[in-house]
Parts: sequence; structure tokens; C-alpha cells
Amino acid sequence: MIFNVLTLYPELIDEYAKTGVVGRGVKSGILSINSVNIRDYTLNKHGCVDDYPYGGGAGMIMMAQPVYDCITAVRQNKDIPVIFFSPKGRPFTTSIAKEYIKYSETILLCGHFEGIDQRALDLCVTDELSMGDYILTGGHLAAMCFIDAVSRYIPGVLGNEESYADESFENGLLEHAQYTRPYEFMGLKVPDILLSGNHAKIQQYKYEQSLAETKKRRPDLFDSAFSKQD
Amino acid sequence: MIFNVLTLYPELIDEYAKTGVVGRGVKSGILSINSVNIRDYTLNKHGCVDDYPYGGGAGMIMMAQPVYDCITAVRQNKDIPVIFFSPKGRPFTTSIAKEYIKYSETILLCGHFEGIDQRALDLCVTDELSMGDYILTGGHLAAMCFIDAVSRYIPGVLGNEESYADESFENGLLEHAQYTRPYEFMGLKVPDILLSGNHAKIQQYKYEQSLAETKKRRPDLFDSAFSKQD
Repeated sequence: MIFNVLTLYPELIDEYAKTGVVGRGVKSGILSINSVNIRDYTLNKHGCVDDYPYGGGAGMIMMAQPVYDCITAVRQNKDIPVIFFSPKGRPFTTSIAKEYIKYSETILLCGHFEGIDQRALDLCVTDELSMGDYILTGGHLAAMCFIDAVSRYIPGVLGNEESYADESFENGLLEHAQYTRPYEFMGLKVPDILLSGNHAKIQQYKYEQSLAETKKRRPDLFDSAFSKQD
Repeated sequence: MIFNVLTLYPELIDEYAKTGVVGRGVKSGILSINSVNIRDYTLNKHGCVDDYPYGGGAGMIMMAQPVYDCITAVRQNKDIPVIFFSPKGRPFTTSIAKEYIKYSETILLCGHFEGIDQRALDLCVTDELSMGDYILTGGHLAAMCFIDAVSRYIPGVLGNEESYADESFENGLLEHAQYTRPYEFMGLKVPDILLSGNHAKIQQYKYEQSLAETKKRRPDLFDSAFSKQD
């Protein structure tokens, strides 16, 4: 899977591409993270990518031309998704992450300043995603979250020791609490059931914990997990 | 505001601290981003921070001791929030971002691998936040999103040219579309009303656009925006 990240901050994306599980995927050739500087596509000699908004208001708007030309150059007429990150997009979830693993290549467009001229978006963007109901200073962090969440489902990225099967949301519920050695830490002990060796009872305990946590912390998820099962 | 980021990937946090609006805030001394490597607090000679989960299951769990000792060392008995990022946390929003600007210092704890031993969380964490209903390979991206979203509200971080007043969520609605020069791009023109010079009409147009976009894209936000006004 090739992730093309179109941004004003390619250095941060390059550093991310060396980090942790995703960095290992890049090293092994399963993933490719290609950072592209939108500023390289300006036609003016000052490398300026922004201008004042029509109709007034605070902030600067990224001009359509450099964004459009950058996308066109990277896309090269390939039929690949162009994703724009914005609080106006559809809320990104684990299910959407899984939808994207079928593509061999994606373009991730990061907005900066106050946003991008709507015409560049109307002409190029195939999906608009929101990573949460909050505002970031730019789309570069959203793009990394997208790569992170999608990559986990690409075969070979998570090692044998790892898995997504037990994670939160996989069964519509939040994950149970986790413990590792030592048995006692600062006077707190691991729940005895986890040491019982009785696999069936441990599974039931984890499931009940998971149910209780979801009901307490996210009644919305709890309700929708069970309405789906009806 | 000092953000202490406790992670296994301090290099990425350090690169982030040089980037864009947040980097400018760091340079000017308004923000401080202090990355701390949890691995520096292991007591074993291999620098190992993880171990197998009690009760079986995939993945490795971060041990309580290095996490606890790292937090204790950074906190130094100061009464500051310790935030852990996890899909089990309360969903992070713009309102929560604004809650946090009252603190002069925070500790941002990043989980890696399959998670952190629950006892370290029970002993230290004051708030657990989720950046969205998806799974990241670690908390380092969540911590950067938190810093990004909170920093925007710290006086002096956004320049005179910038503002958060017009952004999505500020009035409970999504933002209207934005345009900048040229007037015509690839045959598409800027809506004429924005060039009219009639400030009142422009404001009304933007508000109506904002209403229509919110109703179409996020009926949940639309409903809650108007139920609050009743």
C-alpha cells in the first residue's frame, strides 16, 4: 500500500515513516509513505500557497492551483482515492479503516491554515474524513492517524505477537483491562481469575469486563453493539 | 503550557515540536513540548518495557513499573493532570481542549503495544481520552493531536491573521466553504455573494451554508446544536 501524503510539513511525515510498527512495515516494503510538499507546486516565485478569503473573515486559505496541480502530478491519471481530512468529513472509524485496505495506493490531502479553496476539493477529493470533533492546526496529524489505523489491517504489518482481534471495537465493545508481571505492584494484585489457567472462565471474565466497561464508559457503543445483534 | 509526552518514540514528538503553528509557539516560548522516553525508566538491563499478558491473548503489555516510575519522575509531586490516550477514554472534543488550557503543565501518557498494565493507570491517570473510534498503533499520534487541538486556544499561539472564531464546532456547526483568488479556477467561479461587499448578506450566506452543510453531513451535530439553544 502506497500512502501519498500531500502537506506543507513533509519532514514530520518522513520522521513518522521511521517510527514503530508503521516504520517496520515501511522497512519491510509492505507499506510506502511518500511525502509530497504542496509548496513545490506553486507557480509564483515566492512559494506562496495561501491568500485572503473571499468575503472576509480570519485566516488564510490555501489556493486551488498548487493543491490541484500537486494532486494531478501524484495521481498521474490512476484511479485512486483522494482523501481530504476535515472536521466536516464523515467520522472515521475502524470500519472505514478496513474499507481502505483494498486500495494499493491512496492520496492523503492535508489542509493547512484556515482551509483549502473549495474548488480544489470539489474537483479532486473522493472522500472527506474527520478524525474527531476537534480542530487540528493542519491535516498532517490526521493523515498520520489514518495511515496508522489502516496499516494495522494490512497483512504482515502487525507481527505474530500482535493482533487486532482483541482490540476495542472489533466486537463493537471496548477492550477489557490488561495486566502483566509482576503479580503484585504497589500493593495491587492481578485479578486471580487471570492466573487460574481455566481458559473458558478467563474468556468469560474478559467478555464480562468488556461489557461492563463499555456500558459504563460508552453507553452509545453499548446500545449500538446490541441493536446490531438483534 | 508545558506538555510532557511520555512515549517510546520521543524523536517523532521532537520533530512535531518544530512543525507549523505549534513549532512557532514552542520557539516563542508560549509552549514547551518535553518528550520523555519511558524506556529510560526500566530497571532491567535490556531496556525491556513489555511482557506477556496475564490470562493469555495476543500482544505484549507495557509493564507497570517503568510507566509508574516515569510518571513519578516527571510529575515531581506537582498537582498536574496525567492524561492517558485510549479508545476507552471519553471522546475528545473542542470543549475538552478548552478545559485544558487552564493548566500550566500536563503529562501525556502514550500507550504502546497492546496496552499498559491497568495498575499503572489506576495509580496515576487523572483523565483517559479517546481521539476517535479507531485504533492507533500507539498513543504518540493521539498525544500530538491533543497538543495541536489544545494549543490553538492558548493566547498567542495563533497569529493575528488566524482565529478560531469561525471554525467548525465553535457555534456547534460545521464551517462554510472557503474560497480565495483567482475568481475563476478550472471554469469554477467563486459564489458572487462573497464579492458583493455587503457584509450583512455575506454573514447570512455563510451562516446558511454552515447550517445546510451540518444538516447534510452531521445530522447528530445539527440536532444537538439546536436542542442546546432551546
